[in-house]
Amino acid sequence: MHRNVIVGQSGGPTSVINSSLVGVYKTAHDRGAKKVYGMLHGVKGLLDRQYVDLSEHICSDLDIDLLKRTPSSFLGSCRYKLPEIRDNREVYDKIFEILEELDIEAFFYIGGNDSMDTIKKLSDYAILISSDIKFMGVPKTIDNDLACTDHTPGFGSAAKYIASVTKEIIRDGLVYDYPVITILEIMGRNAGWLTAATALSAGEDCEGVDMIFLPEVAFDIDVFMEKVKKLCQSKRSVVIAVSEGIKVADGRYVFELKDHVEFVDAFGHKQLQGAAKFLADKIGAEFGVKTRAIELSTLQRCASHMTSRVDITEAFQVGGAAVKAAFEGDTGKVVVLERVSEDPYICTIGTQDVHKIANIEKKVPLEWITQDNTYVSDELIHYIRPLIQAELSPVMVDGLPRHLRLTL
Amino acid sequence: MHRNVIVGQSGGPTSVINSSLVGVYKTAHDRGAKKVYGMLHGVKGLLDRQYVDLSEHICSDLDIDLLKRTPSSFLGSCRYKLPEIRDNREVYDKIFEILEELDIEAFFYIGGNDSMDTIKKLSDYAILISSDIKFMGVPKTIDNDLACTDHTPGFGSAAKYIASVTKEIIRDGLVYDYPVITILEIMGRNAGWLTAATALSAGEDCEGVDMIFLPEVAFDIDVFMEKVKKLCQSKRSVVIAVSEGIKVADGRYVFELKDHVEFVDAFGHKQLQGAAKFLADKIGAEFGVKTRAIELSTLQRCASHMTSRVDITEAFQVGGAAVKAAFEGDTGKVVVLERVSEDPYICTIGTQDVHKIANIEKKVPLEWITQDNTYVSDELIHYIRPLIQAELSPVMVDGLPRHLRLTL
Repeated sequence: MHRNVIVGQSGGPTSVINSSLVGVYKTAHDRGAKKVYGMLHGVKGLLDRQYVDLSEHICSDLDIDLLKRTPSSFLGSCRYKLPEIRDNREVYDKIFEILEELDIEAFFYIGGNDSMDTIKKLSDYAILISSDIKFMGVPKTIDNDLACTDHTPGFGSAAKYIASVTKEIIRDGLVYDYPVITILEIMGRNAGWLTAATALSAGEDCEGVDMIFLPEVAFDIDVFMEKVKKLCQSKRSVVIAVSEGIKVADGRYVFELKDHVEFVDAFGHKQLQGAAKFLADKIGAEFGVKTRAIELSTLQRCASHMTSRVDITEAFQVGGAAVKAAFEGDTGKVVVLERVSEDPYICTIGTQDVHKIANIEKKVPLEWITQDNTYVSDELIHYIRPLIQAELSPVMVDGLPRHLRLTL
Repeated sequence: MHRNVIVGQSGGPTSVINSSLVGVYKTAHDRGAKKVYGMLHGVKGLLDRQYVDLSEHICSDLDIDLLKRTPSSFLGSCRYKLPEIRDNREVYDKIFEILEELDIEAFFYIGGNDSMDTIKKLSDYAILISSDIKFMGVPKTIDNDLACTDHTPGFGSAAKYIASVTKEIIRDGLVYDYPVITILEIMGRNAGWLTAATALSAGEDCEGVDMIFLPEVAFDIDVFMEKVKKLCQSKRSVVIAVSEGIKVADGRYVFELKDHVEFVDAFGHKQLQGAAKFLADKIGAEFGVKTRAIELSTLQRCASHMTSRVDITEAFQVGGAAVKAAFEGDTGKVVVLERVSEDPYICTIGTQDVHKIANIEKKVPLEWITQDNTYVSDELIHYIRPLIQAELSPVMVDGLPRHLRLTL
């Protein structure tokens, strides 16, 4: 018999983040945890003593299967960063006080590289105060930018959604007999993994995209316009994928190049959107050709109606593996995926020291981008392909995908 | 044994327009047509003698099933309008000359209200010159704005896609613990049918959208801002659906209200986008709250990975019914859907004189919009619900939906 455990979700959601939550919940339950608590809105909510007893909200096997198919973080999320331990010990003392109150044996945090900072600091603090509470990170992010893991749960499903709708948009672009240039804007501020997934659209039944631009290399507008011009001469429909985060050589984002653009939101954050629109407008104005700018938008992280079975299974497994490791005494670690073989695809699960992962961004290696910076290599396509395989069909009720909603 | 037939696709595509093409092809074939030709890019391509023998491109039962799941118009489309007969008889003589060359018995055109103008003029001209070629219209449009038919093939699948992703976006909007206002922009220049479909998101597992604005009634920005302000006081996440075509009382589109906006494309066409962005920016600036503008964009007409079985079946049936009617001697007609009963949903198929349908737009009846113009009535929801039922699962190959591509 184990004591209680608590799990939280942090950072941007993925369409399979709740599969990891189920993995933690079910494995902890099966391995004899007394109670499985869920923090609401991550560690930020925990500081306000906002948590639930998950067994009151996941009431059946059906609920478990619905939760695997539910987009957005079931428990709510936060983007809260703990202060440095030396600057503010009160916050840490408060968290440990709450965890002691709840008789917590292990603390699980499902998140990306920013969220793993929380696991790092809490496990460091546990050593400082000689607490025996275990802290384990469960990886998730559509961006696939986590270090020390072959890939991240959430990426495969986002990649599958992006490649699928890119195929549909490519077909749609050929509908009329006049030229159309379509610019797709894909999520990814600093890492181009998701944008690279548009390359998977090419195949026996699809022309694929014509060019792909990742944020890993500087974007040269003049070269871009020259290449678009050439493509227009040989093709009726041209489809180009760009990361939202592409930048020109002087470091400015492409969407910042527009005059009079308001790119700061109410909080003073740069709104990282508009690269596709800027480029489409420029092409339209200079070449007098019809253009379309399509932002795949929020659906990239929440299209749970189109997930990868490989991804959703791995998302479950990393949750379960975190519980197994913690119950066997591990702490200050993150569960990682290790690709044993690419063909056939075989992936196992291990753990890594959280200090090697927190706050580090893994970008697309430059050797996986073609020399002229306009496409990705076959290696990159082979790397992504196994991650989008197979489906977990939605549970359709009255014509629509069914979700599990947290009611408080 | 019948002589040859020819079929074309016209206007904007839907995700099930090729199911109607298959309906024409298979039914004509089964009923003894010698050859089934397909015009490339509609009547515009036909005038350039661009056509294919469909049996060379649809080679198996598997191809038929793939084609039903293929987005965009397989044969290509056009937005070409025939001149008035009195202004230019040469065009008509050329078309009939080509049809005679091809030994055509019947001509089928899959399209919306603009495209039905082609059937009207060609069938009128056939009477003038005593031609025995039959001309039949096959309805399609995601906009559902065709007169004399209960609904149009293409609408149900677009509505299902919109309602499904609206549910996902609503869940996503609740992920953080601070207020977020999301404005969804849905297709529909003059008719609000598709925007109304967001109402189907509400149910046991979903809060639904908070307000819905259709182009059928004038949009009052002051009232809108007042209502948003009130919603913000009681809810953390607010989701509002607007038609791209909403207009203020003086007739200007909402997206035109922005200063310095470039809303004219390379052809001088108004780009009908930006209502959501305009409203989101205004709310952000005035209320200091985080906002998101999401355009569901082109995917509304091409998301063949998420179609309604009811819709795709009816799309097939209207194609087949057009062939049956033509072979029984009908001409100058459009196949229509007639709802016999709503609960249980029973729908039959009839025909209507094309003169009653061509160039007419059917809008959402005002009694189906709530009195304060911010939502739709239960009658409208009950009208749409049967049309989104059941699925036709995509044929997934190597992780992605498979399509049939026309190779020339």
